[in-house]
Amino acid sequence: MPKTVTKHMKKNEPIRRAPKEILGPARVKGMKDVLPEEYKYWDLVTKKAVEMAKIYSFKRYDLPMLESMELYEKSAGKHSEICTKDLVTFATKSGERLALRPDPIPGLVRSWLDHNLLNPEIISKNFWLGPAFVFDRYQGGRLRQFQGFSLDVFGEFGPSADAQLILIAYNFFKELQLEVEVRVNSLGNAESREAYIKVINNYFKERGRKSKLCPECRKRLLKNPLMVLDCREEKCQEVAADLPPLVDYLNDECRKHFEQVLEFLDNLGIPYTLDTRLVSSRGWEFFDKTIFEFMPVGETRQHLSLGGGGNYGQLFAKLSGRQTKACGVFVDIEKTISRIRSKNITVADVEDADIFMAQLSEAAKQKSMLLFEDLRKSGFKVRECFISASLKQQLEEAEKSHARFTLILGQKELLDGTILLKDMESGVQETIDIRKLITELDKRLNIN
Amino acid sequence: MPKTVTKHMKKNEPIRRAPKEILGPARVKGMKDVLPEEYKYWDLVTKKAVEMAKIYSFKRYDLPMLESMELYEKSAGKHSEICTKDLVTFATKSGERLALRPDPIPGLVRSWLDHNLLNPEIISKNFWLGPAFVFDRYQGGRLRQFQGFSLDVFGEFGPSADAQLILIAYNFFKELQLEVEVRVNSLGNAESREAYIKVINNYFKERGRKSKLCPECRKRLLKNPLMVLDCREEKCQEVAADLPPLVDYLNDECRKHFEQVLEFLDNLGIPYTLDTRLVSSRGWEFFDKTIFEFMPVGETRQHLSLGGGGNYGQLFAKLSGRQTKACGVFVDIEKTISRIRSKNITVADVEDADIFMAQLSEAAKQKSMLLFEDLRKSGFKVRECFISASLKQQLEEAEKSHARFTLILGQKELLDGTILLKDMESGVQETIDIRKLITELDKRLNIN
Repeated sequence: MPKTVTKHMKKNEPIRRAPKEILGPARVKGMKDVLPEEYKYWDLVTKKAVEMAKIYSFKRYDLPMLESMELYEKSAGKHSEICTKDLVTFATKSGERLALRPDPIPGLVRSWLDHNLLNPEIISKNFWLGPAFVFDRYQGGRLRQFQGFSLDVFGEFGPSADAQLILIAYNFFKELQLEVEVRVNSLGNAESREAYIKVINNYFKERGRKSKLCPECRKRLLKNPLMVLDCREEKCQEVAADLPPLVDYLNDECRKHFEQVLEFLDNLGIPYTLDTRLVSSRGWEFFDKTIFEFMPVGETRQHLSLGGGGNYGQLFAKLSGRQTKACGVFVDIEKTISRIRSKNITVADVEDADIFMAQLSEAAKQKSMLLFEDLRKSGFKVRECFISASLKQQLEEAEKSHARFTLILGQKELLDGTILLKDMESGVQETIDIRKLITELDKRLNIN
Repeated sequence: MPKTVTKHMKKNEPIRRAPKEILGPARVKGMKDVLPEEYKYWDLVTKKAVEMAKIYSFKRYDLPMLESMELYEKSAGKHSEICTKDLVTFATKSGERLALRPDPIPGLVRSWLDHNLLNPEIISKNFWLGPAFVFDRYQGGRLRQFQGFSLDVFGEFGPSADAQLILIAYNFFKELQLEVEVRVNSLGNAESREAYIKVINNYFKERGRKSKLCPECRKRLLKNPLMVLDCREEKCQEVAADLPPLVDYLNDECRKHFEQVLEFLDNLGIPYTLDTRLVSSRGWEFFDKTIFEFMPVGETRQHLSLGGGGNYGQLFAKLSGRQTKACGVFVDIEKTISRIRSKNITVADVEDADIFMAQLSEAAKQKSMLLFEDLRKSGFKVRECFISASLKQQLEEAEKSHARFTLILGQKELLDGTILLKDMESGVQETIDIRKLITELDKRLNIN
């Protein structure tokens, strides 16, 4: 460090811990900072997501963080719970009604329609990874930002698509050492559901049943009776306990489809549970046919689900009148990370380096910065912390980088045209002619 | 594809292009969809950012998309242009005043204070990559979301930090085949600026000068005279043309610091231009000492700058009373991509695969999905598109994947316990015993 600067810092004011009360404006409620020491978890999980997407040939896209409220209202219904309770919404100065996306689906459908990308001849496999926003009703009702990834397939596909999406998410969790239970259900198509809704309505005509439901469920019975199954209130679950399952009312085509999905899962060795109460996923009620959810093994509270998905071709029809098949799976990266952390799964901090380059004077710093560029261009994994004035911090960083060798360039070596080479395993230090450095490193790193 | 499903689709409704007028809700103004066909540019640039951060040991962190308006007002001033014009702001139902982050700096400072991470003993090198938001005044005044990355250093560092940040960004652009001009200036510290502001005020006391300024600049002269240099109006630039440069008024310590930065740049072979009008970067006016900007070569319009940065330790002092040094560089990924596209720089679509696995019947699909998992676990780069019903589309995907071999499993092979192996270069097809498949592939892919 140049003397003038050190002097200046000392003269002006010593670095000090401020008392808590003079700290600046606070973090927005329900928002999270991911600090460098924790980032390794996000790195691990997002890298795994990118890897899985690549293996199964899903192509990445990205969408705006904001969509019009109109999009969500048309997708889910103006009075839906997601529009009235979950979405983070606001109006801009110019009067636009906007919402921060809760996940990519409506935006994805909107963009595919916008850019006229639907093509019945082609199966399109799409991958999304990014931040999303909801007011989470089940975790204190606070504003929340979280990260997720989503795989979505459009086109003329059969039951193997449903099975493949389940397979990919299952493998994703497995390769992260998380045991998940796959819960599946079939919501059939509109015809099947119509038949079943009659069953629900008849069931609740029986004396005393309706009055036992929570006020929310009594409303659901009018708007979308299927959602009574989704209620988390114990009394609602009890009174609905004798309802026959929806799968018993699937028409032939829907039953055949579901059987084939389950056959694929059996063949792939993926254990699953039929969950006849599973009727919505991440707050959307627009799924049909296969719907699925990934629960941590041993967990029953549905809001801790690590992800889920299903078929939502009807959303295309709703937004544009165009027909296509669509199936997707969404994984909540935040919740996945919580699980990994709670299970104390070890995550490596940094990738090991070959060489750490340290320096010991202003003049040596100049030379080291050039040498560093030469070394990295020669293909070595080399790390540094030149801007640090202290050799101590540089050597600590060298330890953390797990470098095989540390190079130290000081005033003396600079004058002699040499450099110190320290073997980090044996601790042995040698002085090497700087002109022979790359040859020497090549030799030692290839032998070891 | 199962017959029932095909029949169902045909019966219900053919897939058709909808007339434009029945498309759903529109994309939010000024927002961009990044479609899969374009994503390769984002992939290239964000991967390069991650690579550079890793090489120079910057550790990644992530911050909320939203911060309180109070944070930005305290950072930049309530009446600053960034707070009154650039920020995308809104109020929530519960009355919070929030803003979507325009870049990470104020949030970064807030979080380091929140979590008490400032440590004078340690140089902390931090890396951010993510979406940010501004109303861009120079591109039609529309709401805009863009991606950026930022490298920030906190701690007791000298001029080598400024030089290293410039070096990294310079290398980043160079490795993306973009030629940039590095513009640098020094704003000195508070003492140096005070001396210079007197010079500005005297300069504009001269008859007729002030009246030639735009109304905005006349206000700037009262609030922050330095910002007159930042004005893009030609008449303001003309009337300010005879102002002596700020660097002539730096005190000894600031001049020494700046000279050392330039010496580092000379030593590293980075060409630079002294730009004495450079006083702000991405709308922030809180920089001091070295400030820098990366302009595409041949470009003069400042809003097309690809990135910039400088020292902003005073922001810590402003928000908490705590002293530290801070220096950062921000790169606008959107503008970087625009440049890459406008220069027609070729970007590879996908990584080449070893093997493409195709199938030809429902039963073969089941077996293929299992075989695919075996192959990928054996370490092959294998790709597929099982959910497609058509062999034609599968073979098109095989071409796109640049696979060395394509495997085809049909009804006949399934019964025989064999599989077709097609060499994609020679076009030669062979039938292989499926039990010997992995050995065969090992041999061929290692030999070739």
